[in-house]
Amino acid sequence: MNNFEFYCPTKVIFGKDTISELASNIDKSKKILMTYGGGSIKKNGVYDQVKQALAGYDVIEFGGIEPNPKYETLMKAVEIAKRENVDFLLAVGGGSTLDGTKFIAAASKYFGEKDAYDYFMVEQNPVVDALPLADVITLPATGSEMNNGGVISRIATDEKLAFHSPLLYPQFSIIDPQVTFSLPVKQTINGIVDTFVHVMEQYCTYEVNSPLQDSWALGILRTLIEEAPKVLANPNDYDARANIFWCATCGLNYWISVGVPQDWATHMIGHELTAFYGIDHGQSLAIVLPRLLKNQKISKSKKLAKLAREVFGVEESVDLKAADLAISEIENFFNSIGMKTKLSDYDIDANEAAEKIRARFSSRNVALGEKGNITADVAFDIVKEA
Amino acid sequence: MNNFEFYCPTKVIFGKDTISELASNIDKSKKILMTYGGGSIKKNGVYDQVKQALAGYDVIEFGGIEPNPKYETLMKAVEIAKRENVDFLLAVGGGSTLDGTKFIAAASKYFGEKDAYDYFMVEQNPVVDALPLADVITLPATGSEMNNGGVISRIATDEKLAFHSPLLYPQFSIIDPQVTFSLPVKQTINGIVDTFVHVMEQYCTYEVNSPLQDSWALGILRTLIEEAPKVLANPNDYDARANIFWCATCGLNYWISVGVPQDWATHMIGHELTAFYGIDHGQSLAIVLPRLLKNQKISKSKKLAKLAREVFGVEESVDLKAADLAISEIENFFNSIGMKTKLSDYDIDANEAAEKIRARFSSRNVALGEKGNITADVAFDIVKEA
Repeated sequence: MNNFEFYCPTKVIFGKDTISELASNIDKSKKILMTYGGGSIKKNGVYDQVKQALAGYDVIEFGGIEPNPKYETLMKAVEIAKRENVDFLLAVGGGSTLDGTKFIAAASKYFGEKDAYDYFMVEQNPVVDALPLADVITLPATGSEMNNGGVISRIATDEKLAFHSPLLYPQFSIIDPQVTFSLPVKQTINGIVDTFVHVMEQYCTYEVNSPLQDSWALGILRTLIEEAPKVLANPNDYDARANIFWCATCGLNYWISVGVPQDWATHMIGHELTAFYGIDHGQSLAIVLPRLLKNQKISKSKKLAKLAREVFGVEESVDLKAADLAISEIENFFNSIGMKTKLSDYDIDANEAAEKIRARFSSRNVALGEKGNITADVAFDIVKEA
Repeated sequence: MNNFEFYCPTKVIFGKDTISELASNIDKSKKILMTYGGGSIKKNGVYDQVKQALAGYDVIEFGGIEPNPKYETLMKAVEIAKRENVDFLLAVGGGSTLDGTKFIAAASKYFGEKDAYDYFMVEQNPVVDALPLADVITLPATGSEMNNGGVISRIATDEKLAFHSPLLYPQFSIIDPQVTFSLPVKQTINGIVDTFVHVMEQYCTYEVNSPLQDSWALGILRTLIEEAPKVLANPNDYDARANIFWCATCGLNYWISVGVPQDWATHMIGHELTAFYGIDHGQSLAIVLPRLLKNQKISKSKKLAKLAREVFGVEESVDLKAADLAISEIENFFNSIGMKTKLSDYDIDANEAAEKIRARFSSRNVALGEKGNITADVAFDIVKEA
């Protein structure tokens, strides 16, 4: 096992009818900026529950944070937060709203002269002050509710980049799985795939003798595979919805990543597909992952073989053959829940996409993956096969 | 899955040569009371490493905290902490030192007229203020390094009771598995059994549809069973030591207990055996657990059967039969690592012990276990069979 530091101070309030606990977790003196997305919270009752819980609080609203949250949009919220002397941010919505709110938290306390996107995302300057934030998370997918990072896009430059800071943990996250009963099927599927790939990015690298972390990662994958058909068959199955949500949170709260190498190349390539073609984040991951695993099969063979045996019950004793079976089982699982896994399914030309990504990665001189061996040319090969 | 709240803000610094990171985690202005046990840290080099890391800090020492830390001893440290205006506690040692230091943290900020043991342990009054604390933990066993509780004994009344408070989380815990290379075999074994039983107390109850928590609990048990023979065969096996330590920490940091019922009757009965006869905590648990599981087999059969199949590879399809096999496999595992599991192995008369425990539990009117059905009479039956 590698040396590690672990720190995750977010309080999680999980279960039925927990939105009502908002008031006991935010000081009444706070001036709150409540952020949300396209308005689904007004249809599913979450908006009303939040407003009721915060009756008597001083709350300003900022709606309209889009999926793959845009810097250009978020800066309007930053302007409000600064002007109105907001001292608490409450994100109500999915991972995009929360990621965006983390950016608002940092940018609202940045008073330098640079463009905030350039400063935090491109130059990766550390956050030294941030507004406190919390959330009512409504979509099991990104895990943003229990980590300190986010991903933000900038329209002006077709960019989608990630940032992190210990100052950006939510103070608390409220997770009521009941609010996911009304999720569109597509979002449910995207979230399951996103969680699955988060786990793969942390598990599927090379062996460092970390049996506990491995067993926990594989435990999430097994649970997703068991519970996914249940939520698709019966969207109101509370236990299945709760299990899927807890998998999503634990998929990226650092519990499975301590002491092990990490990959994240599927995400980095997927982000570019989203930036160029506007496909959903989950879709981009489902397209890239199987091809990336095939391309990197030899160096990932031990972990892939273990996954094949412990998650899919494969009895093949030769690691490389078991690895092949793991990759096809993963793609079969994605397809079985209705997630398409080829660029052609989205009318995207694989060669063109591969060329675009090679050009962008070349200009940034990237070397992705746990061994830094996924160069622009390797990314080209991966996307071409997609 | 049941509703839950989770909060664990302790920073964990894990790995080789991490004691040197003390200084970057404690403000130089702090007046530190460094607490430790019987002096093993002076033999294994940990004391020197800590003193070197804290060169230039204002540090007072308090040694001599015993296994099953005694209220009477701890109050001497409280007196020092109050008199010397200590503002940071650093526990260096095992779970007993750390549990004791948590009590010191609370009692040093208690200025009422009651006896602090009566106030916090017997009456269970909430801690409203406490000195900040951190630790260099040297023994994988109690999990105290990443939770907010402790267990303290009072000689005067032959009592051993537990306390908890969100104010008693260590700010940080340093875990260098190398410091366990020199552990006496007995302590290594005690720690493995303690961890195993912690997991059982949280896993082995009744089914609430919590597949992720179950798989993580069973992952710890499997890892303990795989790694225990390695550390016993080669005490300097770093990876095995690291895996055992991380199992111990994760066995009681609330990660596996969220949203599920908990038992803890084995611990409550074991505490009495320790209080009456002075046997080690791990020994008491190894004696009680198999008998308690047999006694409660019917209500725990689903979880025991799952454990039999997923941890011990048992292929029995009838739950009650698989449950029997799980119980004998657990006792076999304890015996295989050199842990005795009968009261007679310690020259204790089972009937006498059973009578004493029944008398004490009767006087407290206890009803233990996840269903509250382990009354004084049931505890008598369990101990009599031990």
